[in-house]
Amino acid sequence: MVHDGRGAFYIGDRNFVVRRAEPVPPAAGEVRIEVAYTGICGTDLHIMHGAMDARVARPAVLGHEMAGLVAELGDGVTGWSVGDRVTVMPLAWCGGCPACRAGHTHICHRLNFIGIDSPGAMQSSWTVPAARLVRLPEHLSLRDGALVEPTAVAVHDVRRSRLRAGERAVVVGAGPVGLLIACVARQAGAEVVVVELERHRRAVAEELGLRAVDPTATDVAAMVQEWTDGAGAEVTFEVSGSAGGVRTAVETLGVRGRLVAVAIHPSPREVDLHRVFWRELEIIGVRVYQHTDFEEAVRLLADGAVPAARLVSEVVPLDDVMAAFAALESGTAIKVLVDCGTGA
Amino acid sequence: MVHDGRGAFYIGDRNFVVRRAEPVPPAAGEVRIEVAYTGICGTDLHIMHGAMDARVARPAVLGHEMAGLVAELGDGVTGWSVGDRVTVMPLAWCGGCPACRAGHTHICHRLNFIGIDSPGAMQSSWTVPAARLVRLPEHLSLRDGALVEPTAVAVHDVRRSRLRAGERAVVVGAGPVGLLIACVARQAGAEVVVVELERHRRAVAEELGLRAVDPTATDVAAMVQEWTDGAGAEVTFEVSGSAGGVRTAVETLGVRGRLVAVAIHPSPREVDLHRVFWRELEIIGVRVYQHTDFEEAVRLLADGAVPAARLVSEVVPLDDVMAAFAALESGTAIKVLVDCGTGA
Ligand SMILES: [Zn+2]
Ligand SMILES: [Zn+2]
Repeated sequence: MVHDGRGAFYIGDRNFVVRRAEPVPPAAGEVRIEVAYTGICGTDLHIMHGAMDARVARPAVLGHEMAGLVAELGDGVTGWSVGDRVTVMPLAWCGGCPACRAGHTHICHRLNFIGIDSPGAMQSSWTVPAARLVRLPEHLSLRDGALVEPTAVAVHDVRRSRLRAGERAVVVGAGPVGLLIACVARQAGAEVVVVELERHRRAVAEELGLRAVDPTATDVAAMVQEWTDGAGAEVTFEVSGSAGGVRTAVETLGVRGRLVAVAIHPSPREVDLHRVFWRELEIIGVRVYQHTDFEEAVRLLADGAVPAARLVSEVVPLDDVMAAFAALESGTAIKVLVDCGTGA
Repeated sequence: MVHDGRGAFYIGDRNFVVRRAEPVPPAAGEVRIEVAYTGICGTDLHIMHGAMDARVARPAVLGHEMAGLVAELGDGVTGWSVGDRVTVMPLAWCGGCPACRAGHTHICHRLNFIGIDSPGAMQSSWTVPAARLVRLPEHLSLRDGALVEPTAVAVHDVRRSRLRAGERAVVVGAGPVGLLIACVARQAGAEVVVVELERHRRAVAEELGLRAVDPTATDVAAMVQEWTDGAGAEVTFEVSGSAGGVRTAVETLGVRGRLVAVAIHPSPREVDLHRVFWRELEIIGVRVYQHTDFEEAVRLLADGAVPAARLVSEVVPLDDVMAAFAALESGTAIKVLVDCGTGA
């Protein structure tokens, strides 16, 4: 069942080479997976732009959003069989730092993000710890299964927001993560409005049945006031990473509202702490996910609550990985998958 | 039992006049209180400086931190008798706005803060809604009872922080509110460090048995790292109202740490949202208190867990109200009380 191993290697300077990649035999406690599809995320694009060269040892196989089949079991691995359909929670933690000791292993002080800090899934064969496998149900295609990881991000963010059915949520920024958050929040029973500058992203949101607002054409704060009968939103998700997004996320919240800080802000942002005080707001940081978020993400994709197929703009063969990155870079694609060869 | 009614009236321009103030007969549901002591807080000082002249209708009787004796009952008031020892939760809410309907009456959109938006307690006789009375136990002096309201602020702030025994808390800013928070946090079983620029305030903190650090002489972030074995603090209270205080409060928090935004920041502040994301921090806004916080504050003062006597720097007769404000303004006093005449 071992294919001719191939992988896409980031070599720096916005460049990849696709070449032979020897399958890594699984050590004790590991499994080797034949990768079907691997998604590209904003962080991968960031790495390709050279922004993380200090962290990423080259040549580097990127990729941490994937689905595939178990191909080989290392010693002592139980509960898994060759041929099992799986995705991977791509985190390895130290177990000994203060975060790990407090049970927050996903924000370990020495976190190894597999696919960034160690080899990722943009190859036909990927060897990972068996403990990080997540089972995919038969009726979820491997193509849709590649969206479990980004969906787990959204599940984690919505969970941390403590969103309840009937609440109103504003999602600021409708890239892949923002759209997934909007779908997960809607499934949780919330009314959702998406705020997005770019027209084509608003169009995707609308195709997903979401209400999408252009902040250059609409006074978002006034719109939310009207929508919520003067109360303000219970939850806002800041997924834009912009100073204006932070402002919108703060000013649209009602009393005791929760702002979930999803996006990465490279520099400190001005925050209206007077309003935080006046309305007893909360700002909640969120980072990656925990195992439970993967399980919920699998359920949501299997149920169709998160419509994976509509979010995948393109599927590109591994040999054309540069084209896959270019498609994402153009800004018109939502999610681009790389077909790593199994194609099941 | 009606004394010759007198009151201190703020007339603008940093000025008060003390003159006759007719006792207001209690309407149905109200009580008239003979005021013993009234504390002066930072907001009162702010008003005296003219900063809130747009909100405060002059001549204005200020004051909302008090203790006294019930003197007269309006129609339909039950559960209270003349001579009962009381303090007052000085909030009146509308009952109909989105905040009130959600049960957050203390952050009502149309909140009447009694003593700012309507007449306060810096007079010998004060008439208030009976529903806002809080009973003081026999063994709590009326002088100490005047500290229930600021202690309720601290109780509210610590409650919102979800502080648990054994956790480490940093209090940034050791004015009256910061010191009260430190005492309440210590009573909750936390280890507490106070960060304060001014020497005399650090001295008061140390007299209270608290560890006090000068941020100009100590690298606070490094100190907290060492203190917490590299974990960072579980909770920080930002009570300084300064940009540097916000920075310190963010950078000293450990994974999943909670920053309680207590101080009022007149303009937006730069917040390191990258760290909020990276460590899954929370920023929690807090404003005034709820009834339960008053009850807990009474218990803490009655038990001596909050050492009221050590926090009161001076007691000044009502006729010398200008001297009381001057003492607070000098920056060396922690809490100044005005003796409003009952003096029980
Ligand atoms: Zn760790
Ligand atoms: Zn109200």
